[in-house]
Amino acid sequence: MLPTAVDAMGGDRAPAEIIAGARQAVDEVGVGVVLVGRPDAIDEAGGSLGLDVIPATEVIEMHDDPAQGVRRKKDSSLVRAAEAVRDGRAAAMISAGNTGATMASALLRMGRVKGVLRPAIATPIPNPGHHPTVLLDAGANAECTPPYLVQFAQMGSVYAARHYGIDRPRVSLLSIGEEDTKGTPLVKETNALLRATPGLAFVGNVEGRDLIGGDAADVIVTDGFTGNVALKALEGALRYLVGAVAAALPAESLAPLLPLAADMDPDNTGGAMLLGVDGVCIISHGSSTARAIVNAVRVAKEMVEADLVADLRDAVA
Amino acid sequence: MLPTAVDAMGGDRAPAEIIAGARQAVDEVGVGVVLVGRPDAIDEAGGSLGLDVIPATEVIEMHDDPAQGVRRKKDSSLVRAAEAVRDGRAAAMISAGNTGATMASALLRMGRVKGVLRPAIATPIPNPGHHPTVLLDAGANAECTPPYLVQFAQMGSVYAARHYGIDRPRVSLLSIGEEDTKGTPLVKETNALLRATPGLAFVGNVEGRDLIGGDAADVIVTDGFTGNVALKALEGALRYLVGAVAAALPAESLAPLLPLAADMDPDNTGGAMLLGVDGVCIISHGSSTARAIVNAVRVAKEMVEADLVADLRDAVA
Repeated sequence: MLPTAVDAMGGDRAPAEIIAGARQAVDEVGVGVVLVGRPDAIDEAGGSLGLDVIPATEVIEMHDDPAQGVRRKKDSSLVRAAEAVRDGRAAAMISAGNTGATMASALLRMGRVKGVLRPAIATPIPNPGHHPTVLLDAGANAECTPPYLVQFAQMGSVYAARHYGIDRPRVSLLSIGEEDTKGTPLVKETNALLRATPGLAFVGNVEGRDLIGGDAADVIVTDGFTGNVALKALEGALRYLVGAVAAALPAESLAPLLPLAADMDPDNTGGAMLLGVDGVCIISHGSSTARAIVNAVRVAKEMVEADLVADLRDAVA
Repeated sequence: MLPTAVDAMGGDRAPAEIIAGARQAVDEVGVGVVLVGRPDAIDEAGGSLGLDVIPATEVIEMHDDPAQGVRRKKDSSLVRAAEAVRDGRAAAMISAGNTGATMASALLRMGRVKGVLRPAIATPIPNPGHHPTVLLDAGANAECTPPYLVQFAQMGSVYAARHYGIDRPRVSLLSIGEEDTKGTPLVKETNALLRATPGLAFVGNVEGRDLIGGDAADVIVTDGFTGNVALKALEGALRYLVGAVAAALPAESLAPLLPLAADMDPDNTGGAMLLGVDGVCIISHGSSTARAIVNAVRVAKEMVEADLVADLRDAVA
């Protein structure tokens, strides 16, 4: 297998923590990793730890406009990572940097999978004791049409099947009531289309409360605006409550909560997957640790070996 | 002050728990309460505990279609409660029953405040250590236009000012990034309109993570679809994590968490307010206890005394 391209410049803890994670991934996952980034920054952070480097002189920063960033910073680590996949020098790309720019780089350099209308971000929501629930679109497309959402359902279903080994993933549509008649026109039309789409195990609408801790569905489909708001509401609530619980309890009481905290830690889910681009692209969260990078490399390897892209092409055909 | 009409038939624990709460409210809040409901059901539950009763022979059930329910069940407790406010026999109405039907009853019987395009549900999100954050619309209008959202901002601002004594409530717009240029066309147009609306302390866009535990805004405005999904995602996450923490810790470790649990308990926030109907209407959650009813009566009294409806009329004029 070709090496996985890791954007050494992306993320709050880049480059040192990202490089450390990439190095660990080589040892733990047993796959090649190539770093992409500014050689001087990599050297300053302690060097590449023996990993190959694809040099890139620019960095698309967190505050950069994604489309402009990709257009103007042609020698950025993100653009070069996407080109490495396109040119057959890497099997997959991973970045913990600017999400919009990661998406734009992948889309503009790798292109879309044949037949896909819009790529979507599939985010695993931790679900201790079960496999995570896959939410998509988590923010790639603020505006969607019913056919986009049907493809998100098809792509999410393939991803959940490959990634979690689920036989026929149950797909649901996020709405404000379980009834088919509730929701916006987008939701009502999508519901009808999903019911008429062969090959999907569509189980109907779910509500915001079904996003976590339930077993209503394996895949939850929504537009990128609602998905992003819901996901961040969820993250905000968990972060808030974890902080409040930790502050209220004496430190010695917290030990029994560590397994739960580990289950909920996004570093352990392997990152979000950009589904629908012609290559494997993993979007790690901004505060990714070395552990998050190791897990992202592991998922990238699985998805490359499973030929996820070919499956996505078949699913939307 | 006229008595507050409490729907004795609404909620998972109706009628006994609702009647008990109404009785407690008379004693604790010092305001009259009149029960609305089926006399036989009230008798079976232990009687009206000395409270007056407006008899109603029907009940709009949780699964009833709201509009149909109001049209067909003209002698239901919800319709009669709204008529009591309309006819000057009650100062406000409270129900823990079918939310859609509560809204429809209030809207169809009380009518809208002059100038209001659409009523909205304003839900307080607990924020321990601070006053709650007011989210609206929490589900009354799945589809919205920018002018609706501007009015939600105006009404939410008045409500936060009166209810929490905030001088100039900071109003924000829920989006997928803080930048004015992010989001759907609805969000972008609303952002521009809000910036141009005099009398509002608009502080820009906030994200899903700002819904809880932050101090980004006093009022958060969104369409009823996004608001409902986000609120339920939040509730689901909190319920899930509280359950997981309680299961992981030995019972004797949980005592320090009780003040936090009380702060987060929706029974203590006084319920959601339907803003924009021509009267005070409070929507309590379905699992309301007697304590939730007492707090709802307290809020109803405050809002009647503050003449919230007149303020709303001025705000949207």
